[in-house]
Amino acid sequence: MNTKKIVLPESEIPRQWYNIMADMPTPMEPPLHPGTGQPAGPDDLSPIFPMALIEQEVSQDQVIDIPDEVLEKYLIWRPTPMYRAYELEKHLDTPARIYFKNEGVSPAGSHKPNTAIAQAYYNKMAGTKKITTETGAGQWGSALSMCCSFFGIECKVFMVKISYNQKPYRRLMMETWGGNCIPSPSNQTNAGRKILEQNPESPGSLGIAISEAVEAAAMDDDTKYSLGSVLNHVLLHQTVIGLECQKQMAIAGDYPDVVIGCAGGGSNFSGCALPFVRDKINGKEIDIIAVEPASCPTLTRGPFAYDFGDAVQMTPLLPMHTLGHSFVPEPIHAGGLRYHGMAPIVSQLLLDDLIRAESISQMETFQAGITFARTEGFISAPETNHAVAMAIREAIKAKEEGKEKTILINWSGHGLVDMAAYEAYLSGKLADHALPEDEIHRALDDIAPLPKPKQYKPGTIL
Amino acid sequence: MNTKKIVLPESEIPRQWYNIMADMPTPMEPPLHPGTGQPAGPDDLSPIFPMALIEQEVSQDQVIDIPDEVLEKYLIWRPTPMYRAYELEKHLDTPARIYFKNEGVSPAGSHKPNTAIAQAYYNKMAGTKKITTETGAGQWGSALSMCCSFFGIECKVFMVKISYNQKPYRRLMMETWGGNCIPSPSNQTNAGRKILEQNPESPGSLGIAISEAVEAAAMDDDTKYSLGSVLNHVLLHQTVIGLECQKQMAIAGDYPDVVIGCAGGGSNFSGCALPFVRDKINGKEIDIIAVEPASCPTLTRGPFAYDFGDAVQMTPLLPMHTLGHSFVPEPIHAGGLRYHGMAPIVSQLLLDDLIRAESISQMETFQAGITFARTEGFISAPETNHAVAMAIREAIKAKEEGKEKTILINWSGHGLVDMAAYEAYLSGKLADHALPEDEIHRALDDIAPLPKPKQYKPGTIL
Repeated sequence: MNTKKIVLPESEIPRQWYNIMADMPTPMEPPLHPGTGQPAGPDDLSPIFPMALIEQEVSQDQVIDIPDEVLEKYLIWRPTPMYRAYELEKHLDTPARIYFKNEGVSPAGSHKPNTAIAQAYYNKMAGTKKITTETGAGQWGSALSMCCSFFGIECKVFMVKISYNQKPYRRLMMETWGGNCIPSPSNQTNAGRKILEQNPESPGSLGIAISEAVEAAAMDDDTKYSLGSVLNHVLLHQTVIGLECQKQMAIAGDYPDVVIGCAGGGSNFSGCALPFVRDKINGKEIDIIAVEPASCPTLTRGPFAYDFGDAVQMTPLLPMHTLGHSFVPEPIHAGGLRYHGMAPIVSQLLLDDLIRAESISQMETFQAGITFARTEGFISAPETNHAVAMAIREAIKAKEEGKEKTILINWSGHGLVDMAAYEAYLSGKLADHALPEDEIHRALDDIAPLPKPKQYKPGTIL
Repeated sequence: MNTKKIVLPESEIPRQWYNIMADMPTPMEPPLHPGTGQPAGPDDLSPIFPMALIEQEVSQDQVIDIPDEVLEKYLIWRPTPMYRAYELEKHLDTPARIYFKNEGVSPAGSHKPNTAIAQAYYNKMAGTKKITTETGAGQWGSALSMCCSFFGIECKVFMVKISYNQKPYRRLMMETWGGNCIPSPSNQTNAGRKILEQNPESPGSLGIAISEAVEAAAMDDDTKYSLGSVLNHVLLHQTVIGLECQKQMAIAGDYPDVVIGCAGGGSNFSGCALPFVRDKINGKEIDIIAVEPASCPTLTRGPFAYDFGDAVQMTPLLPMHTLGHSFVPEPIHAGGLRYHGMAPIVSQLLLDDLIRAESISQMETFQAGITFARTEGFISAPETNHAVAMAIREAIKAKEEGKEKTILINWSGHGLVDMAAYEAYLSGKLADHALPEDEIHRALDDIAPLPKPKQYKPGTIL
């Protein structure tokens, strides 16, 4: 019998996160204060983040020790198994070897707890009593609720109201873990009240929810704010994924030619990819692909610019690929990929040609998810299906070219709480709509007046 | 760091199932033909089951080889990890060591694929083109749909109509795996049409769905029927769970004093327990506990008698603990435990004092589930919470007695597709109702005219 799962013993779990900022050929541009337009320093961030996380946000150390208390919690689901997708290979009749790293084995069903547990820990150490955050579809809010419960921290999640009403299961997961989930806009914050005054029926948005969570944290000394993607320290924590994959590839006696992850804010993609980007910087030939939805093509159609992280312009300006903070993506089912911006680290790596980006339309991703489920068994989250679809493209290409090739997918989570999305697909209710050029241009106009990052490279902007 | 997960390498996966019928001190009574009342032989079963499964149903061989093709599929989720529940122990401040075997890592989220894959395989070998089955909450129907898709067999699932309407997620899982899920009663069978004539608004029942699935299989040469619990061959396939646990306990340098599983039809309980029952027969002291809902107390309040497996009296008569085939349990959220009967093997082991049974009311099980989720992370299925609640009782008892004790839970599945049940609990909508004596007595009257099994032991009937 062939080995199906490449399993890393607990004793081999990585003891350090990998910080790519130490190795990037182009140094990162700093975030800017939204009021002054000047580089934002640690003091600007300290009202909402504990200092340990701010230090990680700006650290240039190549590796950062994972505290024992975090490692202990990681063991609940880590090391995660890396699978060889024999049945998918057979079905595609491809010479490619396809592996997938199963981050769906965490209790929350996704990669999100990798950083949630670290953030909860550092907050606990800093004396934080309560953490606020926002969530769209609920993957992040549920992961953070779980991790806060482990450390006895109160967790308040502002959940986009339309998702709160339409997706009760993830809200219920938060509550089962003791989290307090509130539909946003709420009347608990000035930001929320202001929106409700203008429109009592507002369905909410991630931008509004971020504003509410940040405000709730800033107003109270014992309360901090937590973000589930985009920022450097979040990507740092996720690198356990790729570090494990490297050890598992060694066990399998293989090494990836292609590394694939879906990208919304950039954290699961980076978690798997960054350790391989280091290898690429050191001379390895690897094709590293971030896959985004055609309806929210941040990396493939957005310029690299300074932009706000939220819709209401409260956060620092980040140097990133962006579709403009006023861009409202179609309500596709991959809610975790509906973000106008992209992690600055991912954006910079794209500029430096260390990774590439592809966009895929919704129908193709669900078709890929069905193929995957009927061959490998596991039902992927709609976000994850973007990575699966890209892997299938690459496997078919390998067949056409008659080339052996090793493909690694970061399988970021299962879709058992997202079955309504599959219903829409299976019942023929989904269709792809082209994203009009002018819709992007309109949103891009909003970022034109903002400062331009120095690292601007002509040719990378559409 | 302490080892959290005791992981068995793939090379150590059990190669044989354990057949307890070879070791039982009291031989099993045969099933009876529903028409003649005479022992039902292989020929009576061959219209609906392939011969290989019928042979396993009556086999007296102590071990039965697991075919390579089944082993290969098992590797998708097996060996499953066995966890040490340090955080739960700490929370309960108990001297007990608590382990749980995580069967929730299968793509379907439960132990059900352990037998589904074997049944799909033997049917494939026998040339079966289509398999029919029934499902209540949908765990079994989804597991069988997945396994049929692996072997290219068509799968038709008759799902109790009220669950079909109330629990769309598991139906959608079936459809994602290519299964055809039909609300029962349907107009595709005589049984269904008859019910619909009497009551077009019938919400359906497991009994009706079984009748429809059996009829659909019996009518067509290429179609067979499949059952997800109760029968000997189903319990046989599930023994991989306990066989792995024994190897994992050896790795941990430990051995259970208490083995706990929830029991509806008896398959997950048996899967974990039977290999330990063998040890008990051979002289080991082990307390082996089947836990059932207080509202469906088959083992704790039902007599051992011949009874039908279904409500409409189509199946063979089985010698088992039963509440009567007309007993309709309360609509508790642990749908998988709402069965009037119990596996004949489990029933006989209880008679022979090799296992014991306890019943727990719904509120206590959800309270246990919340405690488990907030300490160990994983959200259990409502069925599984019965086992968790019993383990908590035993751990508290160990504390009160000041005794070290090793407790093993068969954690049969996660509850991410059952969050509506948690909602009912968290919102205070659940309450426990005592099960009136006369309700049981009424249903028991229906089995009085049936033949009595020889192994009747006075004192075991309430």
